[in-house]
Amino acid sequence: MQGSDREQEPNRGQARRQQILDAAAACFVRDGFHGTSIAKISKAAGMSPGHIYHFFESKEAIIGALVQRKLERSLEMVLQFESEDDLFQAMIDRVEVGLNEKTDLDTAALEMEMLAEAARNPAVAEIVRAADAAKRERLCALHRAARQARGMELGDAEASIEVIMALFDGLSGRAISHPDLDKAALLPLLRAALRALL
Amino acid sequence: MQGSDREQEPNRGQARRQQILDAAAACFVRDGFHGTSIAKISKAAGMSPGHIYHFFESKEAIIGALVQRKLERSLEMVLQFESEDDLFQAMIDRVEVGLNEKTDLDTAALEMEMLAEAARNPAVAEIVRAADAAKRERLCALHRAARQARGMELGDAEASIEVIMALFDGLSGRAISHPDLDKAALLPLLRAALRALL
Repeated sequence: MQGSDREQEPNRGQARRQQILDAAAACFVRDGFHGTSIAKISKAAGMSPGHIYHFFESKEAIIGALVQRKLERSLEMVLQFESEDDLFQAMIDRVEVGLNEKTDLDTAALEMEMLAEAARNPAVAEIVRAADAAKRERLCALHRAARQARGMELGDAEASIEVIMALFDGLSGRAISHPDLDKAALLPLLRAALRALL
Repeated sequence: MQGSDREQEPNRGQARRQQILDAAAACFVRDGFHGTSIAKISKAAGMSPGHIYHFFESKEAIIGALVQRKLERSLEMVLQFESEDDLFQAMIDRVEVGLNEKTDLDTAALEMEMLAEAARNPAVAEIVRAADAAKRERLCALHRAARQARGMELGDAEASIEVIMALFDGLSGRAISHPDLDKAALLPLLRAALRALL
Protein backbone atom coordinates (compact mmCIF):
# COMPACT_ATOMS: atom_id res chain seq x y z
CA MET A 1 0.00 0.00 0.00
CA GLN A 2 2.82 2.33 0.89
CA GLY A 3 4.38 1.87 -2.55
CA SER A 4 1.07 2.58 -4.21
CA ASP A 5 0.56 5.71 -2.09
CA ARG A 6 3.95 6.96 -3.14
CA GLU A 7 3.04 6.40 -6.77
CA GLN A 8 -0.20 8.32 -6.37
CA GLU A 9 1.43 11.43 -4.93
CA PRO A 10 2.90 12.80 -8.17
CA ASN A 11 -0.34 11.95 -9.98
CA ARG A 12 -2.37 13.83 -7.39
CA GLY A 13 -0.06 16.83 -7.73
CA GLN A 14 -0.34 16.56 -11.49
CA ALA A 15 -4.13 16.45 -11.30
CA ARG A 16 -4.18 19.55 -9.06
CA ARG A 17 -1.90 21.33 -11.48
CA GLN A 18 -4.21 20.52 -14.40
CA GLN A 19 -7.21 21.65 -12.32
CA ILE A 20 -5.55 25.03 -11.75
CA LEU A 21 -4.66 25.37 -15.44
CA ASP A 22 -8.24 24.57 -16.52
CA ALA A 23 -9.64 27.11 -14.06
CA ALA A 24 -7.11 29.75 -15.16
CA ALA A 25 -7.88 29.13 -18.84
CA ALA A 26 -11.60 29.64 -18.18
CA CYS A 27 -10.88 32.90 -16.29
CA PHE A 28 -8.55 34.18 -19.04
CA VAL A 29 -11.21 33.49 -21.69
CA ARG A 30 -13.94 35.21 -19.66
CA ASP A 31 -12.05 38.16 -18.18
CA GLY A 32 -8.76 38.38 -20.07
CA PHE A 33 -5.31 38.08 -18.49
CA HIS A 34 -5.51 41.59 -17.05
CA GLY A 35 -8.95 41.03 -15.59
CA THR A 36 -7.84 37.80 -13.89
CA SER A 37 -6.16 37.68 -10.48
CA ILE A 38 -4.72 34.72 -8.56
CA ALA A 39 -7.67 35.23 -6.17
CA LYS A 40 -10.11 34.74 -9.06
CA ILE A 41 -8.28 31.63 -10.28
CA SER A 42 -8.25 30.23 -6.75
CA LYS A 43 -12.03 30.70 -6.48
CA ALA A 44 -12.62 29.12 -9.92
CA ALA A 45 -10.36 26.16 -9.06
CA GLY A 46 -11.91 25.71 -5.60
CA MET A 47 -8.50 25.96 -3.90
CA SER A 48 -6.87 28.45 -1.58
CA PRO A 49 -4.54 31.07 -3.10
CA GLY A 50 -1.73 29.50 -1.03
CA HIS A 51 -2.39 26.20 -2.79
CA ILE A 52 -2.16 27.93 -6.19
CA TYR A 53 1.16 29.54 -5.18
CA HIS A 54 2.45 26.12 -4.14
CA PHE A 55 2.27 25.14 -7.83
CA PHE A 56 2.78 28.46 -9.65
CA GLU A 57 4.74 31.46 -8.46
CA SER A 58 2.80 34.00 -10.55
CA LYS A 59 0.08 34.54 -13.16
CA GLU A 60 2.83 34.63 -15.80
CA ALA A 61 3.99 31.16 -14.66
CA ILE A 62 0.42 29.91 -15.20
CA ILE A 63 0.41 31.39 -18.71
CA GLY A 64 3.75 29.70 -19.34
CA ALA A 65 2.34 26.34 -18.20
CA LEU A 66 -0.73 26.78 -20.43
CA VAL A 67 1.47 27.48 -23.45
CA GLN A 68 3.63 24.49 -22.51
CA ARG A 69 0.56 22.24 -22.22
CA LYS A 70 -0.61 23.32 -25.65
CA LEU A 71 2.87 22.62 -27.05
CA GLU A 72 2.90 19.13 -25.49
CA ARG A 73 -0.42 18.35 -27.16
CA SER A 74 0.96 19.52 -30.51
CA LEU A 75 4.04 17.35 -30.04
CA GLU A 76 1.83 14.34 -29.25
CA MET A 77 0.22 14.92 -32.64
CA VAL A 78 3.69 15.02 -34.25
CA LEU A 79 4.61 11.75 -32.49
CA GLN A 80 1.46 10.11 -33.86
CA PHE A 81 2.39 11.28 -37.34
CA GLU A 82 5.91 9.90 -36.96
CA SER A 83 4.54 6.39 -36.45
CA GLU A 84 2.54 6.47 -39.69
CA ASP A 85 3.68 4.69 -42.86
CA ASP A 86 2.27 7.33 -45.20
CA LEU A 87 2.87 10.67 -43.53
CA PHE A 88 1.30 12.66 -46.35
CA GLN A 89 -1.94 10.73 -46.16
CA ALA A 90 -1.89 10.80 -42.35
CA MET A 91 -1.70 14.60 -42.39
CA ILE A 92 -4.55 14.87 -44.86
CA ASP A 93 -6.60 12.36 -42.87
CA ARG A 94 -6.18 14.48 -39.74
CA VAL A 95 -7.68 17.64 -41.26
CA GLU A 96 -11.10 17.07 -39.68
CA VAL A 97 -9.63 16.59 -36.19
CA GLY A 98 -7.55 19.75 -36.63
CA LEU A 99 -10.55 21.73 -37.86
CA ASN A 100 -12.63 20.67 -34.86
CA GLU A 101 -9.84 21.47 -32.41
CA LYS A 102 -9.13 24.91 -33.87
CA THR A 103 -12.78 25.95 -34.09
CA ASP A 104 -13.65 25.00 -30.51
CA LEU A 105 -14.77 28.39 -29.19
CA ASP A 106 -13.01 28.22 -25.81
CA THR A 107 -9.77 27.07 -27.41
CA ALA A 108 -10.07 29.84 -30.00
CA ALA A 109 -10.78 32.52 -27.38
CA LEU A 110 -7.81 31.44 -25.24
CA GLU A 111 -5.58 31.47 -28.30
CA MET A 112 -6.59 35.06 -29.19
CA GLU A 113 -6.08 36.19 -25.60
CA MET A 114 -2.60 34.61 -25.52
CA LEU A 115 -1.59 36.21 -28.80
CA ALA A 116 -2.97 39.61 -27.78
CA GLU A 117 -1.00 39.34 -24.53
CA ALA A 118 2.15 38.15 -26.34
CA ALA A 119 1.92 41.26 -28.54
CA ARG A 120 2.10 43.54 -25.49
CA ASN A 121 3.97 41.59 -22.81
CA PRO A 122 7.61 40.64 -23.56
CA ALA A 123 7.65 37.84 -20.94
CA VAL A 124 4.61 36.18 -22.51
CA ALA A 125 5.98 36.82 -26.00
CA GLU A 126 9.16 34.94 -25.09
CA ILE A 127 7.19 31.91 -23.84
CA VAL A 128 4.89 31.86 -26.89
CA ARG A 129 7.75 32.25 -29.34
CA ALA A 130 9.92 29.53 -27.77
CA ALA A 131 7.00 27.07 -27.88
CA ASP A 132 6.22 28.07 -31.45
CA ALA A 133 9.85 27.52 -32.52
CA ALA A 134 9.88 24.04 -30.91
CA LYS A 135 6.65 23.07 -32.66
CA ARG A 136 7.82 24.47 -35.99
CA GLU A 137 11.10 22.58 -35.85
CA ARG A 138 9.35 19.24 -35.30
CA LEU A 139 6.80 19.93 -38.03
CA CYS A 140 9.56 20.85 -40.49
CA ALA A 141 11.35 17.56 -39.78
CA LEU A 142 8.04 15.80 -40.40
CA HIS A 143 7.55 17.65 -43.67
CA ARG A 144 11.03 16.64 -44.88
CA ALA A 145 10.44 13.00 -43.90
CA ALA A 146 7.10 12.98 -45.72
CA ARG A 147 8.70 14.27 -48.91
CA GLN A 148 11.61 11.85 -48.69
CA ALA A 149 9.26 8.90 -48.16
CA ARG A 150 7.49 9.83 -51.40
CA GLY A 151 10.75 10.33 -53.29
CA MET A 152 10.00 14.03 -53.77
CA GLU A 153 12.58 16.79 -53.79
CA LEU A 154 12.89 18.60 -50.48
CA GLY A 155 11.01 21.88 -50.81
CA ASP A 156 11.13 24.85 -48.49
CA ALA A 157 9.88 23.03 -45.38
CA GLU A 158 9.99 26.16 -43.18
CA ALA A 159 7.78 28.14 -45.55
CA SER A 160 5.36 25.25 -46.11
CA ILE A 161 4.92 24.66 -42.39
CA GLU A 162 4.54 28.39 -41.77
CA VAL A 163 1.67 28.63 -44.26
CA ILE A 164 0.04 25.42 -42.99
CA MET A 165 0.18 26.83 -39.45
CA ALA A 166 -1.35 30.12 -40.68
CA LEU A 167 -4.17 28.17 -42.32
CA PHE A 168 -5.06 26.10 -39.27
CA ASP A 169 -4.45 28.82 -36.67
CA GLY A 170 -6.61 31.12 -38.79
CA LEU A 171 -9.56 28.77 -38.33
CA SER A 172 -9.73 29.86 -34.67
CA GLY A 173 -10.38 33.44 -35.68
CA ARG A 174 -12.99 32.29 -38.20
CA ALA A 175 -14.85 30.38 -35.48
CA ILE A 176 -15.18 33.62 -33.47
CA SER A 177 -16.08 35.87 -36.43
CA HIS A 178 -18.43 33.35 -38.01
CA PRO A 179 -19.57 30.88 -35.33
CA ASP A 180 -22.13 29.11 -37.54
CA LEU A 181 -19.68 28.36 -40.35
CA ASP A 182 -20.32 25.11 -42.20
CA LYS A 183 -17.38 23.00 -41.06
CA ALA A 184 -18.19 19.98 -43.21
CA ALA A 185 -18.09 22.17 -46.34
CA LEU A 186 -14.57 23.35 -45.45
CA LEU A 187 -13.03 19.88 -45.34
CA PRO A 188 -12.45 19.29 -49.09
CA LEU A 189 -10.98 22.80 -49.45
CA LEU A 190 -8.70 22.42 -46.45
CA ARG A 191 -7.47 19.12 -47.88
CA ALA A 192 -6.88 20.71 -51.29
CA ALA A 193 -4.93 23.56 -49.72
CA LEU A 194 -2.88 21.13 -47.63
CA ARG A 195 -2.04 19.07 -50.73
CA ALA A 196 -0.84 22.26 -52.43
CA LEU A 197 1.32 23.08 -49.39
CA LEU A 198 2.88 19.73 -48.49
CA MET B 1 -14.27 81.56 -48.60
CA GLN B 2 -17.49 80.86 -46.70
CA GLY B 3 -18.32 78.01 -49.06
CA SER B 4 -14.85 76.57 -48.68
CA ASP B 5 -15.10 76.85 -44.86
CA ARG B 6 -18.34 74.93 -44.92
CA GLU B 7 -16.74 72.24 -47.02
CA GLN B 8 -13.87 71.94 -44.59
CA GLU B 9 -16.10 71.41 -41.54
CA PRO B 10 -17.04 67.78 -42.24
CA ASN B 11 -13.44 67.05 -43.24
CA ARG B 12 -12.18 68.50 -39.98
CA GLY B 13 -14.70 66.42 -38.03
CA GLN B 14 -13.67 63.38 -40.05
CA ALA B 15 -9.99 64.00 -39.33
CA ARG B 16 -10.72 64.35 -35.58
CA ARG B 17 -12.66 61.11 -35.65
CA GLN B 18 -9.76 59.28 -37.35
CA GLN B 19 -7.36 60.79 -34.81
CA ILE B 20 -9.45 59.37 -31.95
CA LEU B 21 -9.66 55.96 -33.63
CA ASP B 22 -5.88 55.83 -34.16
CA ALA B 23 -5.25 56.80 -30.53
CA ALA B 24 -7.80 54.24 -29.30
CA ALA B 25 -6.29 51.49 -31.48
CA ALA B 26 -2.83 52.20 -30.00
CA CYS B 27 -4.25 52.07 -26.45
CA PHE B 28 -6.12 48.82 -27.13
CA VAL B 29 -2.96 47.20 -28.50
CA ARG B 30 -0.86 48.35 -25.53
CA ASP B 31 -3.32 47.89 -22.66
CA GLY B 32 -6.20 45.82 -24.03
CA PHE B 33 -9.84 46.96 -24.14
CA HIS B 34 -10.29 46.41 -20.43
CA GLY B 35 -7.15 48.31 -19.54
CA THR B 36 -8.20 51.29 -21.67
CA SER B 37 -10.48 54.09 -20.42
CA ILE B 38 -11.93 57.08 -22.29
CA ALA B 39 -9.56 59.18 -20.14
CA LYS B 40 -6.57 57.22 -21.49
CA ILE B 41 -7.79 57.56 -25.09
CA SER B 42 -8.33 61.30 -24.57
CA LYS B 43 -4.75 61.68 -23.32
CA ALA B 44 -3.35 59.63 -26.24
CA ALA B 45 -5.40 61.62 -28.77
CA GLY B 46 -4.50 64.98 -27.17
CA MET B 47 -8.18 65.93 -26.80
CA SER B 48 -10.48 66.46 -23.85
CA PRO B 49 -12.76 63.57 -22.80
CA GLY B 50 -15.70 65.85 -23.67
CA HIS B 51 -14.37 66.10 -27.20
CA ILE B 52 -14.15 62.29 -27.44
CA TYR B 53 -17.75 61.97 -26.18
CA HIS B 54 -18.82 64.45 -28.85
CA PHE B 55 -17.85 61.81 -31.46
CA PHE B 56 -18.36 58.51 -29.60
CA GLU B 57 -20.80 57.79 -26.83
CA SER B 58 -18.81 54.91 -25.30
CA LYS B 59 -15.72 52.70 -25.60
CA GLU B 60 -17.90 50.11 -27.33
CA ALA B 61 -18.87 52.73 -29.95
CA ILE B 62 -15.15 53.29 -30.61
CA ILE B 63 -14.64 49.56 -31.05
CA GLY B 64 -17.60 49.52 -33.42
CA ALA B 65 -16.07 52.34 -35.47
CA LEU B 66 -12.70 50.56 -35.60
CA VAL B 67 -14.35 47.38 -36.89
CA GLN B 68 -16.31 49.47 -39.39
CA ARG B 69 -13.13 51.20 -40.59
CA LYS B 70 -11.46 47.85 -41.11
CA LEU B 71 -14.51 46.64 -43.05
CA GLU B 72 -14.45 49.74 -45.28
CA ARG B 73 -10.81 49.08 -46.11
CA SER B 74 -11.65 45.48 -47.02
CA LEU B 75 -14.51 46.65 -49.22
CA GLU B 76 -12.19 49.09 -50.99
CA MET B 77 -10.02 46.08 -51.84
CA VAL B 78 -13.10 44.29 -53.20
CA LEU B 79 -13.98 47.35 -55.31
CA GLN B 80 -10.47 47.37 -56.76
CA PHE B 81 -10.83 43.69 -57.65
CA GLU B 82 -14.19 44.33 -59.31
CA SER B 83 -12.58 46.72 -61.79
CA GLU B 84 -10.03 44.11 -62.93
CA ASP B 85 -10.35 42.18 -66.19
CA ASP B 86 -8.81 39.00 -64.83
CA LEU B 87 -10.07 38.66 -61.27
CA PHE B 88 -8.23 35.41 -60.64
CA GLN B 89 -4.91 36.89 -61.59
CA ALA B 90 -5.67 40.10 -59.69
CA MET B 91 -6.27 38.12 -56.49
CA ILE B 92 -3.06 36.17 -56.92
CA ASP B 93 -1.16 39.36 -57.70
CA ARG B 94 -2.40 40.92 -54.46
CA VAL B 95 -0.98 38.17 -52.21
CA GLU B 96 2.11 40.18 -51.28
CA VAL B 97 0.07 43.25 -50.26
CA GLY B 98 -2.23 41.03 -48.19
CA LEU B 99 0.73 39.31 -46.52
CA ASN B 100 2.30 42.65 -45.58
CA GLU B 101 -0.98 44.01 -44.22
CA LYS B 102 -1.77 40.94 -42.15
CA THR B 103 1.74 40.62 -40.67
CA ASP B 104 2.01 44.25 -39.58
CA LEU B 105 2.47 43.78 -35.84
CA ASP B 106 0.14 46.55 -34.67
CA THR B 107 -2.60 45.41 -37.04
CA ALA B 108 -2.11 41.83 -35.87
CA ALA B 109 -2.20 42.79 -32.19
CA LEU B 110 -5.40 44.84 -32.63
CA GLU B 111 -7.00 41.96 -34.51
CA MET B 112 -6.22 39.49 -31.69
CA GLU B 113 -7.53 41.93 -29.09
CA MET B 114 -10.77 42.42 -31.04
CA LEU B 115 -11.30 38.68 -31.47
CA ALA B 116 -10.52 37.98 -27.81
CA GLU B 117 -13.02 40.68 -26.83
CA ALA B 118 -15.62 39.39 -29.32
CA ALA B 119 -15.32 35.95 -27.70
CA ARG B 120 -16.34 37.36 -24.31
CA ASN B 121 -18.45 40.45 -25.02
CA PRO B 122 -21.76 39.90 -26.88
CA ALA B 123 -22.00 43.56 -28.01
CA VAL B 124 -18.54 43.40 -29.61
CA ALA B 125 -19.29 39.94 -31.02
CA GLU B 126 -22.35 41.34 -32.78
CA ILE B 127 -20.33 44.16 -34.39
CA VAL B 128 -17.50 41.84 -35.47
CA ARG B 129 -19.88 39.23 -36.88
CA ALA B 130 -22.00 41.72 -38.84
CA ALA B 131 -18.86 43.21 -40.44
CA ASP B 132 -17.53 39.74 -41.17
CA ALA B 133 -20.80 38.71 -42.84
CA ALA B 134 -20.77 41.84 -45.04
CA LYS B 135 -17.18 41.20 -46.11
CA ARG B 136 -17.84 37.52 -46.76
CA GLU B 137 -20.87 38.25 -48.92
CA ARG B 138 -18.90 40.60 -51.16
CA LEU B 139 -15.96 38.21 -51.42
CA CYS B 140 -18.28 35.33 -52.36
CA ALA B 141 -19.83 37.42 -55.16
CA LEU B 142 -16.30 38.16 -56.33
CA HIS B 143 -15.39 34.47 -56.24
CA ARG B 144 -18.44 33.58 -58.35
CA ALA B 145 -17.67 36.34 -60.87
CA ALA B 146 -14.05 35.17 -61.15
CA ARG B 147 -15.14 31.60 -61.90
CA GLN B 148 -17.78 32.72 -64.40
CA ALA B 149 -15.26 34.93 -66.22
CA ARG B 150 -13.01 31.88 -66.66
CA GLY B 151 -15.90 29.67 -67.78
CA MET B 152 -15.49 27.47 -64.70
CA GLU B 153 -18.32 25.74 -62.85
CA LEU B 154 -19.43 27.61 -59.76
CA GLY B 155 -17.90 25.84 -56.76
CA ASP B 156 -18.78 26.30 -53.12
CA ALA B 157 -17.93 30.02 -52.93
CA GLU B 158 -18.79 30.29 -49.22
CA ALA B 159 -16.42 27.50 -48.26
CA SER B 160 -13.62 28.74 -50.54
CA ILE B 161 -13.82 32.26 -49.15
CA GLU B 162 -13.97 30.95 -45.59
CA VAL B 163 -10.73 28.99 -46.05
CA ILE B 164 -9.02 31.89 -47.87
CA MET B 165 -9.98 34.18 -44.97
CA ALA B 166 -8.61 31.63 -42.47
CA LEU B 167 -5.34 31.51 -44.40
CA PHE B 168 -4.82 35.28 -44.52
CA ASP B 169 -6.21 36.04 -41.05
CA GLY B 170 -3.95 33.29 -39.72
CA LEU B 171 -0.90 35.20 -40.93
CA SER B 172 -1.55 37.79 -38.20
CA GLY B 173 -1.12 35.17 -35.50
CA ARG B 174 2.02 33.90 -37.21
CA ALA B 175 3.54 37.40 -37.17
CA ILE B 176 3.13 37.50 -33.37
CA SER B 177 4.33 33.93 -32.71
CA HIS B 178 7.19 34.12 -35.20
CA PRO B 179 8.05 37.79 -35.79
CA ASP B 180 11.17 37.09 -37.89
CA LEU B 181 9.39 34.81 -40.35
CA ASP B 182 10.73 34.95 -43.90
CA LYS B 183 7.86 36.69 -45.70
CA ALA B 184 9.38 36.48 -49.17
CA ALA B 185 9.63 32.68 -48.85
CA LEU B 186 5.92 32.45 -48.06
CA LEU B 187 4.77 34.14 -51.27
CA PRO B 188 4.97 31.17 -53.70
CA LEU B 189 3.24 28.93 -51.16
CA LEU B 190 0.48 31.42 -50.45
CA ARG B 191 -0.10 31.76 -54.19
CA ALA B 192 -0.20 27.96 -54.62
CA ALA B 193 -2.71 27.65 -51.77
CA LEU B 194 -4.83 30.45 -53.23
CA ARG B 195 -4.85 28.77 -56.66
CA ALA B 196 -6.04 25.56 -54.99
CA LEU B 197 -8.81 27.49 -53.21
CA LEU B 198 -10.14 29.81 -55.92
